[in-house]
Amino acid sequence: MESTSLGIVMNGVTGRMGYRQHLVRSILAIREQGGVELRDGTRVRVEPLLVGRDASKLKQIAARHDLPRWTTSLSEALSDESCTVYFDAQVTKARPGALLEAMAAGRHVYTEKPIAETVTDAEELARVAQCAGVKNGVVHDKLFLPGLIKLKRLVDAGFFGRILSVRGEFGYWVFEGDWQSAQRPSWNYRKQDGGGITLDMFCHWSYVLEHLVAPVLAVTAKAVTHIPTRYDEAGSAYEATADDAAYGIFELEGGVIAAVNSSWCVRVHRDELVEFQIDGTHASAVAGLHDCVAQSRVVTPKPVWNPDVRENHPFRHDWQTIPDNSVPQNGFKAQWEQYIRHVVEDGSHPYDFHAGARGVRLAEAGLQSSDEGRRIELNAMRR
Amino acid sequence: MESTSLGIVMNGVTGRMGYRQHLVRSILAIREQGGVELRDGTRVRVEPLLVGRDASKLKQIAARHDLPRWTTSLSEALSDESCTVYFDAQVTKARPGALLEAMAAGRHVYTEKPIAETVTDAEELARVAQCAGVKNGVVHDKLFLPGLIKLKRLVDAGFFGRILSVRGEFGYWVFEGDWQSAQRPSWNYRKQDGGGITLDMFCHWSYVLEHLVAPVLAVTAKAVTHIPTRYDEAGSAYEATADDAAYGIFELEGGVIAAVNSSWCVRVHRDELVEFQIDGTHASAVAGLHDCVAQSRVVTPKPVWNPDVRENHPFRHDWQTIPDNSVPQNGFKAQWEQYIRHVVEDGSHPYDFHAGARGVRLAEAGLQSSDEGRRIELNAMRR
Amino acid sequence: MESTSLGIVMNGVTGRMGYRQHLVRSILAIREQGGVELRDGTRVRVEPLLVGRDASKLKQIAARHDLPRWTTSLSEALSDESCTVYFDAQVTKARPGALLEAMAAGRHVYTEKPIAETVTDAEELARVAQCAGVKNGVVHDKLFLPGLIKLKRLVDAGFFGRILSVRGEFGYWVFEGDWQSAQRPSWNYRKQDGGGITLDMFCHWSYVLEHLVAPVLAVTAKAVTHIPTRYDEAGSAYEATADDAAYGIFELEGGVIAAVNSSWCVRVHRDELVEFQIDGTHASAVAGLHDCVAQSRVVTPKPVWNPDVRENHPFRHDWQTIPDNSVPQNGFKAQWEQYIRHVVEDGSHPYDFHAGARGVRLAEAGLQSSDEGRRIELNAMRR
Amino acid sequence: MESTSLGIVMNGVTGRMGYRQHLVRSILAIREQGGVELRDGTRVRVEPLLVGRDASKLKQIAARHDLPRWTTSLSEALSDESCTVYFDAQVTKARPGALLEAMAAGRHVYTEKPIAETVTDAEELARVAQCAGVKNGVVHDKLFLPGLIKLKRLVDAGFFGRILSVRGEFGYWVFEGDWQSAQRPSWNYRKQDGGGITLDMFCHWSYVLEHLVAPVLAVTAKAVTHIPTRYDEAGSAYEATADDAAYGIFELEGGVIAAVNSSWCVRVHRDELVEFQIDGTHASAVAGLHDCVAQSRVVTPKPVWNPDVRENHPFRHDWQTIPDNSVPQNGFKAQWEQYIRHVVEDGSHPYDFHAGARGVRLAEAGLQSSDEGRRIELNAMRR
Repeated sequence: MESTSLGIVMNGVTGRMGYRQHLVRSILAIREQGGVELRDGTRVRVEPLLVGRDASKLKQIAARHDLPRWTTSLSEALSDESCTVYFDAQVTKARPGALLEAMAAGRHVYTEKPIAETVTDAEELARVAQCAGVKNGVVHDKLFLPGLIKLKRLVDAGFFGRILSVRGEFGYWVFEGDWQSAQRPSWNYRKQDGGGITLDMFCHWSYVLEHLVAPVLAVTAKAVTHIPTRYDEAGSAYEATADDAAYGIFELEGGVIAAVNSSWCVRVHRDELVEFQIDGTHASAVAGLHDCVAQSRVVTPKPVWNPDVRENHPFRHDWQTIPDNSVPQNGFKAQWEQYIRHVVEDGSHPYDFHAGARGVRLAEAGLQSSDEGRRIELNAMRR
Repeated sequence: MESTSLGIVMNGVTGRMGYRQHLVRSILAIREQGGVELRDGTRVRVEPLLVGRDASKLKQIAARHDLPRWTTSLSEALSDESCTVYFDAQVTKARPGALLEAMAAGRHVYTEKPIAETVTDAEELARVAQCAGVKNGVVHDKLFLPGLIKLKRLVDAGFFGRILSVRGEFGYWVFEGDWQSAQRPSWNYRKQDGGGITLDMFCHWSYVLEHLVAPVLAVTAKAVTHIPTRYDEAGSAYEATADDAAYGIFELEGGVIAAVNSSWCVRVHRDELVEFQIDGTHASAVAGLHDCVAQSRVVTPKPVWNPDVRENHPFRHDWQTIPDNSVPQNGFKAQWEQYIRHVVEDGSHPYDFHAGARGVRLAEAGLQSSDEGRRIELNAMRR
Repeated sequence: MESTSLGIVMNGVTGRMGYRQHLVRSILAIREQGGVELRDGTRVRVEPLLVGRDASKLKQIAARHDLPRWTTSLSEALSDESCTVYFDAQVTKARPGALLEAMAAGRHVYTEKPIAETVTDAEELARVAQCAGVKNGVVHDKLFLPGLIKLKRLVDAGFFGRILSVRGEFGYWVFEGDWQSAQRPSWNYRKQDGGGITLDMFCHWSYVLEHLVAPVLAVTAKAVTHIPTRYDEAGSAYEATADDAAYGIFELEGGVIAAVNSSWCVRVHRDELVEFQIDGTHASAVAGLHDCVAQSRVVTPKPVWNPDVRENHPFRHDWQTIPDNSVPQNGFKAQWEQYIRHVVEDGSHPYDFHAGARGVRLAEAGLQSSDEGRRIELNAMRR
Repeated sequence: MESTSLGIVMNGVTGRMGYRQHLVRSILAIREQGGVELRDGTRVRVEPLLVGRDASKLKQIAARHDLPRWTTSLSEALSDESCTVYFDAQVTKARPGALLEAMAAGRHVYTEKPIAETVTDAEELARVAQCAGVKNGVVHDKLFLPGLIKLKRLVDAGFFGRILSVRGEFGYWVFEGDWQSAQRPSWNYRKQDGGGITLDMFCHWSYVLEHLVAPVLAVTAKAVTHIPTRYDEAGSAYEATADDAAYGIFELEGGVIAAVNSSWCVRVHRDELVEFQIDGTHASAVAGLHDCVAQSRVVTPKPVWNPDVRENHPFRHDWQTIPDNSVPQNGFKAQWEQYIRHVVEDGSHPYDFHAGARGVRLAEAGLQSSDEGRRIELNAMRR
């Protein structure tokens, strides 16, 4: 089997996501399976070059996985001619600078989201990438959740007729950290550290809604901080300056309304941690991370509001489970394979820096809507 | 056992609600049980005088229930000195005029909601009632739903700690009327006939939120017409000019956010046709028409987002059913008894014309918010 | 990673508890994990020096676990300057003398419970420890039972409102030893050998009640010997001179009553071998060794006593399981780590010799109450 | 079928128990079935004569059940020569006087418990009854609970070997009356009105323990008021002056210990509202109102305390349900038949005024023990 090699500079793999999802579960798994198979049957082998600030951690990781190449110098890594791809999983703050440096070195770029903290930075990155003519991509892992894959399948099948509306509920209870330790890092709750649920989740809702239904044209949102005091990793109280819940009404192309609640202050009375319901003229469906159920209009019951009689109709039984019909794969690895094909054989990759910028734009617009008490239109954005 | 008599002019009892809920299930049921018992142990008997436009229907109803008194003349009825209470269950359009006439005749007034189609009319009614010094009340039946009674009990018990947010989902699929007949009247979908889900439901959400949690201070809403063409009772197509779904974000006193979706274009993936979830620092609860489940913070699970592992935790099992601990009664009858005690012995009755006007105001503000794309504050309203 | 070394004289590790829980599952497990981590990130390595009366057993244990240091001479062990901690897991009778010797040698001391057979001895030990200024600690393993950890979490969360009462049931059937062998040693049933369930268990109830709810102020108890003749390890009948059941009513600070039955003559109609129920104004909970279930007042049913109707309400279903939300660890090891931090960096350790003396005092008071038929107050004791 | 007639003066049948259990479910049920069948096959018909203070209520009851005889004058009723039996279901306070008057008139007497508020009064009643030579009986309804009937059957069968101990748990949560109405009358919580759980329940425990196992020789108890403020039937706060929980240790003849908790402030983590466990050398059993389960020593498991291993033994499965093997009947009616046979043909009736006085004595001793902090012996009491 013929194969070529692709060197990848991986920056930020000492963090949890970078290490576990991108290095181990994606790049090393691709190495393990012999590379990415192309349309012509040949394979692309991947050769990571680790970059980071903490030499001892890098050394440890490199040793554990038998990886010969690592460095604490980004510029050194970017000057390695065998590496045509640069990947970034650093903290958001450090990202734009590194991506610009990589593009200046002529590298193709792939990055975690959000691509930047501000729309200005995000759009600058998209513009530079376009001018430089480098292949650019952003992680969009939620699309690979088995539940959303099945939901997309229903959309593609025309199952819904005309789609009318989307309901989304994301969230769970994040403990305050006093009498039980918190299950998320404290920086998530500090605006000054890049925290906030709007910034974290609206980037996802941007590509999820765009992919499943239609692009977002306008947003009206209310972002709030329900829990003003939390306790950090050391057990010390701190002021939560970032929003921990965001209630959003998104207007999509085609008149579809998406009402999506995102919250770290909600107890889960759902089957899954995130759920989307799509209603259309011909059918509806509800999808979570893993499962998806649907109801066609021909099985839709006709309830009549009658306060005299206890309604005993088991409404949840009117929904049917959508079968898997395929084996779900790790979403992060699937994205890497998609991006590598995009680089090597120009395969499709809709989630470029423009998509990433749209995500940042939606988050920024959501916060602006909340601050100014008005609907924000997004249609001036390039798509 | 001592008893006195109370004559009640009942206008609009030929309609479904007026006949079934107000005449049969309330006034006649109160007669059956020997009247309303007062604090001093005496009883008030009720004597209805039916008013309506259709003499033959009135005659039929009067005969069926052995009621001697009925007339097609409102002024004649209002001149009957034995009737100190006027009740209105007419179409909204006809209501303000009849209520003004009744108050001019010195009658106490009780009415179905909404009390008027516009805030101007509603406030005028509240003002006149206050000046005339008559006892005035508006139906607020949702508060008597067993599920909401239990939810209110939890609020009163301080179960939630500080309340953070409310989620509401109301709705079901109302058929378009072509291949299956619609289960709601066509005027509901015509703005020119007083239709629209915002006008219909926001009046309810006003007193429900105020009663359960806190008054509404501001509203941001998006009201839309998802299904533009429907088919009427005769099977003819007509243009749906009124909103059939309204997505609302209500800001309540104390910083509580209530995100409430109301829709006649949604398929029910819930246990009941309407559900409210309240989340607080110490607990959460979800209530429908009949049932209510709760979760205290001490049983709250600590989910960690991990895309690698299928989450098998049965989140719905973490909720416990709230027991009835009392026998639920018909809400309409309970309201009538409350209002009669208010008239006869000055018992408390918070749901007066001012409350009714606040309901109309919320509906109007919701529509205005949707039209103008901005948040509308309500705090200038009298409470 | 920087580390220091801590030598520990371990006396009595040839017994079951001393060997399994303290040596293998605690000290050796701590060695395995690289020592105890301190706040400053450095680590304390532990180096045991085994002491015992049986040289061959000691030698065997030392060989099995590759431990170079052991001796049958306590004074030799105590003169080893590398060992700053003395630990005692001998029979109770031998304990006070050894502890006094260790303290005289300037060693910090940690010991199994009860710290002595009499209050006089126990208080003497506490006094000496205080004067000598050595760090002193007593095992309090029941607090590390997962069920009690969860119960404590509920207390800390203020879940119960005001706590009213505690019910405790401890016990199981210990076979008499004739037709089936007994599962406890025969000395447990001989007063002259330090036996008796009051002496064994009231030491535990002392710190458990103090830790979970409040200190014990008074005790009324009835200690009895239900089974007067038992059969020892050799199958010979002997007279059971010690109590095998104790029925206690404990009055705690704040007016809380704890009714606790301890018995080796009871068949288990419970989910676990020990169960505590706490009832408070706002909620109740029942915890065993592992599990904990709770009931808030809002889900409390309202049973009405009616002998005519069979009560079919499934009362046990009204209780909800408290989730773990954290990984339980071995309690003995956790206590060792707590004590070592107490020694090395002065971390908190509320279970000192005074706490141990309070436990002995409660046992003694329980027996006195039973003998004299009166309530014994404990409030003169130092806390 | 030959039959004779027995007139019964029934005093206090306007109360809930008197009316429902004694009049309707006992005396009228006996009339319905054609009287009480005697050993010789003949039948005794019963003819009630109602006495009470409220003429209108008496008249209503008499009319409803077609009973010709009623009066508000006790002396008039007692002078009716056809009535040889007097029954008392008045409030406790009024009882001794009426019973003395009835005995002075030569009537046989049957009464609800407690027979008096004080031991002095109770013993006086017993003495008078004995001197007057009238048949005297006290209600002892708990013995007719199906669960206790089965438990008694096990005792009679010698199933337990030597009985060692009894555990009793009685109670449930009685709501305070503020946010949910109370399910017991407010006088139960006022000492000045004859309230208190010790007075209410120890009368029962007296005959239950005596009947099932052995007479009570000594009692040590702690009676407390856990909830100091409650809300009465009108919703007004009042001070709870009577005990709402009593923790008792009863010493029975033969060295048996019975630890019984009675509480209106406990949430039910049991199968039934009351449960008794008996442990004996050969077996144990647990009985509630309806069901009874048992465990013989041959199926007793041998648990070993091991904190390292999660105990998964399902201890509740070790118990086997005792079959009914007979149709349970209404206990109040069964007692009436027993008493009537006692009057007419001198059948056995162990629950006379002496038994009633022992019940009052136990309650008084329980309260005294609690007040004085000491064990109270009862063996001077006549049995």
